[in-house]
Parts: sequence; C-alpha cells; structure tokens
Amino acid sequence: MPTSPLNKPDTDLKKAVVLLSGGLDSTTVLAAARAKGFRCYCLSFSYGQKQIVELEKAARNAEKYGAEKHLILRLDLDKIGGSALTSDLIVPKKESLEEVPGEKASENADSIPVTYVPGRNSIFLTHAMAWAETVGAFDVFIGVNVMDYSGYPDCRPEFLAAFENMANLGTKAGVSSGRKFSIHAPLLHLSKKEIINLGSSLGVDYAETHSCYDPNSEGKACGHCEACLLRLKGFADAGRKDPAVYHD
Amino acid sequence: MPTSPLNKPDTDLKKAVVLLSGGLDSTTVLAAARAKGFRCYCLSFSYGQKQIVELEKAARNAEKYGAEKHLILRLDLDKIGGSALTSDLIVPKKESLEEVPGEKASENADSIPVTYVPGRNSIFLTHAMAWAETVGAFDVFIGVNVMDYSGYPDCRPEFLAAFENMANLGTKAGVSSGRKFSIHAPLLHLSKKEIINLGSSLGVDYAETHSCYDPNSEGKACGHCEACLLRLKGFADAGRKDPAVYHD
Repeated sequence: MPTSPLNKPDTDLKKAVVLLSGGLDSTTVLAAARAKGFRCYCLSFSYGQKQIVELEKAARNAEKYGAEKHLILRLDLDKIGGSALTSDLIVPKKESLEEVPGEKASENADSIPVTYVPGRNSIFLTHAMAWAETVGAFDVFIGVNVMDYSGYPDCRPEFLAAFENMANLGTKAGVSSGRKFSIHAPLLHLSKKEIINLGSSLGVDYAETHSCYDPNSEGKACGHCEACLLRLKGFADAGRKDPAVYHD
Repeated sequence: MPTSPLNKPDTDLKKAVVLLSGGLDSTTVLAAARAKGFRCYCLSFSYGQKQIVELEKAARNAEKYGAEKHLILRLDLDKIGGSALTSDLIVPKKESLEEVPGEKASENADSIPVTYVPGRNSIFLTHAMAWAETVGAFDVFIGVNVMDYSGYPDCRPEFLAAFENMANLGTKAGVSSGRKFSIHAPLLHLSKKEIINLGSSLGVDYAETHSCYDPNSEGKACGHCEACLLRLKGFADAGRKDPAVYHD
C-alpha cells in the first residue's frame, strides 16, 4: 500500500478520471484534482509513443497521489499514423538531428506543430468518458492548455465544450442519470511558469515527470526538442531549477 | 488483388472511412458507401468482443468491396468493462442461459440494453476521424440506427451531430483545411427489414455477415440472443431467408 499522507481514500469524495501521461502538465493536473478532493482514477495510454518512460513516471505519481486505480490502455495510434510522435516517417532518426522538430516545430505552414497527433485528445477523452461511466465518475481532468500549445486544435476551450456536449448526448450516464459530465482543464489558461508554480505549491516532484519527445535509451531528456525547450523556459521563467536529468 | 468488378479504385473519387464490424448493418453501409462512389478505408476493431468471427467477415467484405485499405485496431475496451459484450461479469456463462440477455435485454429499468458498451461509438468514431484526417478523408460512415436500437444513446442523430461538431473543432483538418467532416449514418431511420432490402439490392451476401452475441466455437450464431432475434425478424419481415448458419 502507498504510504503518502495523500493516500487516504474517502468514499464520500467525488470520483474523477484523470488523464495522466506522466508529463509535467498532467502530473500537475493530478495534484490539482486531489487538492480539490477528488478520488482519482488515473488513465494512461501506451500508443507507440517514443517516450515510454512517461508511463513509468505516471505509475509512480498515481501511487504517490493515492489513485483509486491506474489503468494503462493500449492504443494503436501508431497504425493510424500522421504524427511526429508516433511515426518514424515524420520524425527522422537521430542521425539527421537537424530535421527533428525542435524549437521551430510550431512554425510550419499552418502553425499546427508536426507533433500534432490526429485525434489524440478526442481518443483519450472518449476512453476517459467510457471509464468514468463505468466507475460512476462524472468529472474528467485533462492537462491541455492554450498558452504554450496554441497550434493544437484539440487543446482549445471550444473543442472541450463540444466534447462535453457530445459526451452528455452519447452515454447512458449523460442521458439517464440526471447528472452531466464535466471536462476539467485546470491548466487551460496557465503559462508553463504558472503550471510549474501551481504544481510546486501542491508538492509535485518534477524530477518524476517526463516531457522530452526524444529521450535516450535510459529515458533521459534531450534538452533540445520542442517539449524540452518549453519546459526549460517554464522553469527559467519561474526562477526554479528543472530537476529533470538531461543526457547532454 | 481483389477481382470483384467493384474493385476499380478511381483516384477521382472521394475518400471515406467506413466503420466495418462485419455485422449485417455495417456491411450494408460499406455497400452503400461504394454505391455512392466513395473510395473506402475500412476500419474494424478488436476489443475483447466475444464474436471475433465478425472480423473475418469484415476482412472478406472489405476485399469484396474493393477497400483501399482495411485497418484492424486493437482497443482495450474489455479493460474498461461495463458491458455484456466485453465482460463475463455481466453476461453469465452459457450454463445459466436463462440469465443471458435475450429478447428482453432492452427491457431493463432505464430501457438501455445491457449490451450497451460505454463510449463504444464515441471511441470508434474518434479513431475513424483520426484515420480520416491521416488519409485525407472528410466522410465517415457508421451503421447506427435508431429503429431497432432506440435504447442506445450513441446511436441517436443528436449524438452524431454533436460528434461531427466536436470533430470539426478538434482536428487540424476540420479547423484549417476549409473542409468539414461529415458523419454519414445511412441506416439511421431504416428498419432491419429495410436495411436487408437495401443491402440485397446492392449485392450484399448476408451469409458473410455476423450478428450473434454468443456464437459457438465455430463462429455459428446461437439464434436466441437479442442480435439474432432482431436479425431473424428482419429477414422474416423482408420475406427473405437468412443465409447465416445457426448452430441449433
């Protein structure tokens, strides 16, 4: 059993499904959901992402924050393709590092990063909604924000509102329980600096979070990709040292 | 290579993703999409369903109808649970057949069948949307209808409209291409009889479709479950013989 003082399940608390990638943002969201008094059902995905180390971090944080359960679901997003995060066709191998999406990744023709994964948040959220319905939760937490990732269409508030509407029309729980699903995105309008300050105030150990798109075989971050640069800038802006280990 | 006269891919034709379970309805939808001149990308799922024979039927029909590609994605819906179709906790084993959902399955307290799978159509559609975006399609076909399955919230037109809206707000293609996703449900208001008549007029071989929730080890239908009874009634109403093989 976990030993953290946070691990005191209270059956009077409301249940929530928390999408937990193991990254900086979603770990902060988990801490925020716990701070709001939710009993958390943490949901992660294994979908051919290169940074599998994320899932190990997710598991450790789910335990630390006293999750009722941590479910890791396999998705075949890599078979669908279309993203730098799941396809070698788009992210070149490391030998040709100049072509790996780095700080210029968000500056392609239409301003949507090559790291955009078609349908990713929709697919994550539909699974979260389904699991929420199964466990009797009506609250789903997701770590999207529009500040640092304004190029992702599925991180915008209008998308989240449309998803919530769809969820309430397409589920037994939404239609017949008298209650409604709520999609919570507590980081939506926060900068990376503000996210880091929020998480730090809630006890998040950012050494136990992973952001890098291109870690080495030991899971250490590259320090150069879009995600690392955003993260490092966030820590710098917050006047804090990033505790993550970088491999060069 | 397929040899059917339908197998003449025409690069001028519009692309569509067709959700193809291998059942009577979705196979009819594939035939209808081809008849409308779409180049079809058929999408099936392996999700712990008991009737895996469906996927073999799906593959044969994808080939017959000249699909550009047939993708079978693994989903962990059985880990989420909550449905008679994926959980032995809800569907008792055959020894206690009186408890298996049969013709009374849709008459539970709130009129939603126990065969309802939380989030199923939402999850299927988000994958279809993602694959559509990847292959450059804006049309998605799904075989839902409100006549025989009025108890399923995710088979209703208001759900499909909400999904379409969400898809157009949550994807790069929906936001920035100038085109919009359309969810096509050509069977929405058809009875099973009308679906069978439509498919028959389009050359569907219903021997190559599977409906049963509880097939035997050879994939033969039981003839007693809700799906078999609806199917048999549809053929009877249409004045046709069901070519499916029943095991007793």
